[in-house]
Amino acid sequence: MFEQLAIIGCGLMGGSFALALKRAGLVKRVVGYSKSPTTTARAHQMGVIDVEAASALEAVAGSDIVLIAVPVAATEATFKTIQPLVTPEMLIMDVGSTKRDVVDAARRALREKVGSFVPAHPIAGKEVSGVEHSDVDLYQGRQLILTPIERTQARQLQQAVDVWTALGSRVVKMSPESHDAAFAAVSHLPHLISFAFMNAIAGQPQGQDYLSLAGPGFRDFSRIAASDAKVWRDIMMSNREELLAQTKIFQLNLQAIELMIASGNSEALEGLIDQASLARSHWRMVQQQK
Amino acid sequence: MFEQLAIIGCGLMGGSFALALKRAGLVKRVVGYSKSPTTTARAHQMGVIDVEAASALEAVAGSDIVLIAVPVAATEATFKTIQPLVTPEMLIMDVGSTKRDVVDAARRALREKVGSFVPAHPIAGKEVSGVEHSDVDLYQGRQLILTPIERTQARQLQQAVDVWTALGSRVVKMSPESHDAAFAAVSHLPHLISFAFMNAIAGQPQGQDYLSLAGPGFRDFSRIAASDAKVWRDIMMSNREELLAQTKIFQLNLQAIELMIASGNSEALEGLIDQASLARSHWRMVQQQK
Repeated sequence: MFEQLAIIGCGLMGGSFALALKRAGLVKRVVGYSKSPTTTARAHQMGVIDVEAASALEAVAGSDIVLIAVPVAATEATFKTIQPLVTPEMLIMDVGSTKRDVVDAARRALREKVGSFVPAHPIAGKEVSGVEHSDVDLYQGRQLILTPIERTQARQLQQAVDVWTALGSRVVKMSPESHDAAFAAVSHLPHLISFAFMNAIAGQPQGQDYLSLAGPGFRDFSRIAASDAKVWRDIMMSNREELLAQTKIFQLNLQAIELMIASGNSEALEGLIDQASLARSHWRMVQQQK
Repeated sequence: MFEQLAIIGCGLMGGSFALALKRAGLVKRVVGYSKSPTTTARAHQMGVIDVEAASALEAVAGSDIVLIAVPVAATEATFKTIQPLVTPEMLIMDVGSTKRDVVDAARRALREKVGSFVPAHPIAGKEVSGVEHSDVDLYQGRQLILTPIERTQARQLQQAVDVWTALGSRVVKMSPESHDAAFAAVSHLPHLISFAFMNAIAGQPQGQDYLSLAGPGFRDFSRIAASDAKVWRDIMMSNREELLAQTKIFQLNLQAIELMIASGNSEALEGLIDQASLARSHWRMVQQQK
């Protein structure tokens, strides 16, 4: 049970965490801060937070649990701002989709207090953003990755496991490096592809006519292309090496299929599609056991 | 009201059409034929068809409406088989995802009887196939493209419009050429990409570990990669020129984003993502008004 949760960045991720923690009865009071005061006010109006803070530092004052839910590129500045009030007992987490850069930022900005920080990445989200889309069930049944470093304190790490487990998440621990390699493949690459795909279609003279004919396959395939530009700019820049390696592998596979089509090699084409179809048919999303 | 519907190819598309036509009270009797007798028998057991035919020709005998729902590559052979029993009053339709090749096949195989054929493409489907997945609501609220040619008889064209409208589909007419260009972009390209993507991930040494971490974004993006290999082999081969043109445009757009990432041009990257995100956010799937 925590006394006070500080949400820094009252958006979809932070708002959903606050709602879930309250419903679970794990926190008495939620203080929120967003860069835009109107966002903080809206979070207050919606009952996502109880108190509006005028700064990240003010939000952290007196809090025993802090969730940093700002765009990845703003993480280091946030760590610097709150550093003076970070205590050895405080649990600080983030929700960023990349972890090496966040860990590096935490080392630089939190310095000797870095042990209070437990890097976290919930595998949950929506293609819409903003506190108005907060969802108390967002983390329920989803995986939650923690990427502790050697300096992470055991007590805070255990608290992080306990909190997310209580919210219904399935907690997985791995190194920041393993995390970033895996998510370049299964998250950052599909986003990159879907952005390029939408631009390719919409940029054609008849693009709008084509789009008016698109059906359910298109809808699901392109859903993530509607994601927030600033958030994804930061993720892609932060994890650029892993992502560029993945997009090269993808293009080689794409060109292999193209070659079979262009050369009329129907049998080999079927083999490549079949391989993909089997791989996808066997895949099941890991979900928390109820 | 039709006397007898012949379903040639008792799979997801044919089975769903039979169920929907029966529920709408538009047909008295359904005769079915599949290449595999066990499939025909299963369709019978499930009540999707009333009578099992031993051949496509036998199914067509005495039918006033015929739906050919076989893989695209088998369409011409089916036309040839049934040609002797095609009458000027009969309405024949297909459900193929490509239309130029089907129209060419119909001209060659049906010859002077080609006017009874109305090429059709329902924008509906599932990533699973087989008659056991038949769904009476599959076509409800979906678009249905008809691509008549100059020799298509007006009476049959009107019947086709009426039948699909009665099933809840929104009927759109266009040329086979426009159809194939549009669906190369919004359907065949996303399938090609999703197959290449799955192969790229699953083919890596740590692919299975990566896949175990994938979440809802991956799930939706890759759903169509589970599609049937034979069906998609045929579609891609049939529409290869349009598809290869689309995949080139896609790769140029992908490489533009890659270049912004590699060169660290964060502002231009955000611009490209924002463009994609806006295009996708504004898109709405056309659905039949109730």
